[in-house]
Amino acid sequence: MSELQLPTYEDVVAASKRIEGKAHRTPVLTSRTANEELGAELFFKAENMQRMGAFKFRGAYNALARFSPEQKKAGVVAFSSGNHAQAVALSAKLIGMPATIVMPHDAPESKVAATRGYGANVIIYDRYTEDREQIGRELAQKHGYTLIPPYDHADVIAGQGTAAKELFEDVGELDALFVCMGGGGLLSGSSLAAKALSPKCKLYGVEPEAGNDGQQSFRSGSIVHIDTPKTIADGAQTQHLGQLTFPIIRRNADDILTVSDAQLIEAMRFFASRMKIVVEPTGCLGYAAARAMQDGLRGKRVGVILSGGNIDIPRLAALLA
Amino acid sequence: MSELQLPTYEDVVAASKRIEGKAHRTPVLTSRTANEELGAELFFKAENMQRMGAFKFRGAYNALARFSPEQKKAGVVAFSSGNHAQAVALSAKLIGMPATIVMPHDAPESKVAATRGYGANVIIYDRYTEDREQIGRELAQKHGYTLIPPYDHADVIAGQGTAAKELFEDVGELDALFVCMGGGGLLSGSSLAAKALSPKCKLYGVEPEAGNDGQQSFRSGSIVHIDTPKTIADGAQTQHLGQLTFPIIRRNADDILTVSDAQLIEAMRFFASRMKIVVEPTGCLGYAAARAMQDGLRGKRVGVILSGGNIDIPRLAALLA
Repeated sequence: MSELQLPTYEDVVAASKRIEGKAHRTPVLTSRTANEELGAELFFKAENMQRMGAFKFRGAYNALARFSPEQKKAGVVAFSSGNHAQAVALSAKLIGMPATIVMPHDAPESKVAATRGYGANVIIYDRYTEDREQIGRELAQKHGYTLIPPYDHADVIAGQGTAAKELFEDVGELDALFVCMGGGGLLSGSSLAAKALSPKCKLYGVEPEAGNDGQQSFRSGSIVHIDTPKTIADGAQTQHLGQLTFPIIRRNADDILTVSDAQLIEAMRFFASRMKIVVEPTGCLGYAAARAMQDGLRGKRVGVILSGGNIDIPRLAALLA
Repeated sequence: MSELQLPTYEDVVAASKRIEGKAHRTPVLTSRTANEELGAELFFKAENMQRMGAFKFRGAYNALARFSPEQKKAGVVAFSSGNHAQAVALSAKLIGMPATIVMPHDAPESKVAATRGYGANVIIYDRYTEDREQIGRELAQKHGYTLIPPYDHADVIAGQGTAAKELFEDVGELDALFVCMGGGGLLSGSSLAAKALSPKCKLYGVEPEAGNDGQQSFRSGSIVHIDTPKTIADGAQTQHLGQLTFPIIRRNADDILTVSDAQLIEAMRFFASRMKIVVEPTGCLGYAAARAMQDGLRGKRVGVILSGGNIDIPRLAALLA
């Protein structure tokens, strides 16, 4: 599939068959308290309970499952702030191929350890001075690895779309769907499912305030690049949307919203204290934005994708304290 | 129902009809990591996701739903270290009757606030110097309230048994079931369901080491009283089993096990980091004991009831840090 060919809902359907029995069909959680707070009916797709703790497994497995025998033999390389790393490492292990993962020096310790635990070769780089994409591409050229980027890849996008597909299948059509956004893989994939299964659903991407490149891009009409944003949402520290994710988002999303780190912590506290679940900061983006919109959602049926739950326990403790 | 008439499985079945649509049918969670650690197949009944955050809602609602019109008019009184308080308060609110709750001075702040939030009148006593049962009984006599004790009541026991009933219905027969134990309401109720639905299932009650009155009672054959134990498992700080719970447990349980507070914290960390769920210390008793038994469970199908998830967030942060 060439880089200019955008994935479609048919690709999401094919991905959902490919990952069946490999990825969990995660539960949809509800909360009376959340419903009362917002005066809405909320449905939380709990991708924090996905294998390796985040939706990223869906896209990675879908991409690796499509490798040719030659590609599988040489192996895969990926660069990632964390969850994509674990997703590729676990998928490679399950399919049976070598994996090399390029990870930033400040990635959560638990994510580095988990990635190594799946048998991957981990290479650490400095997030603020080195270019992970370049490192990844050089390794791919030198060793014949196939590079699977964290979001800007048709098979990755199609795989990520399966989470929203399951959500709509389980709860029916929605009035609004909130999806966290880093490079836009989950949002663009979700939008393919939304347009097919719930065409009137308003679709909101949500970024950390400090990293609002997606909002700028969406509103200006061309991809805006920023410096690596400093935010607790380590899964959304991307510098720009992708060549594939941007046009899909631009066409299908209704708006891109931003929330502060303080709002993320409030949402994380809500999840822990009322819903009894652990959601990593990036996974809190969607609900934080829904809470901020409050009155706009009164009487609506609202979906929120909780993207992941991978956070070092001391860090979780520090953020909740 | 007199105090000497023990509840049966038929009472559990009746309770499950009574609470239907009021209590959540909580999910049964699984974890590949837990399965790998123990070499067993584990099924976690997530009562931390029950209404008001613990299984106690089942028993309280079942008991209050059976009040006569006169009893409902006068109202209910209860004494509780926390979750039973919220359970009675919420049930009273839903059914529409006044509730007075006698709570210890060191009950978690979140539990006191939640109980008041349900509209109950809260009376605080000193856990180490005053007798909550006496306070409760005096209030009942003075105002005509009906006293619903936290565990030693046939309708409460029958209601608590619905959690294990649902678990067996959802996953089939089990080789072993681990149930946390304070006064024995959940364990005795669970045992009624186990004997009916999975008669070969080994049934283990689990207490904190510091409060092993149940183990002493089970092994000696008569109810042993202890001082209020100091343990992080605040839901298991009971001083003795009940006149109803003891004979049922003595007949149906296979053993009573104990775990340390350190083992509870380890289990709590596991739940937060790997299963992405918040379980209060008392709710960790069952899995902590299963982990300690490890080799004895190899190849078995094992149920664990996670009794609740109500813990103040700063305390959760402190315990996980």
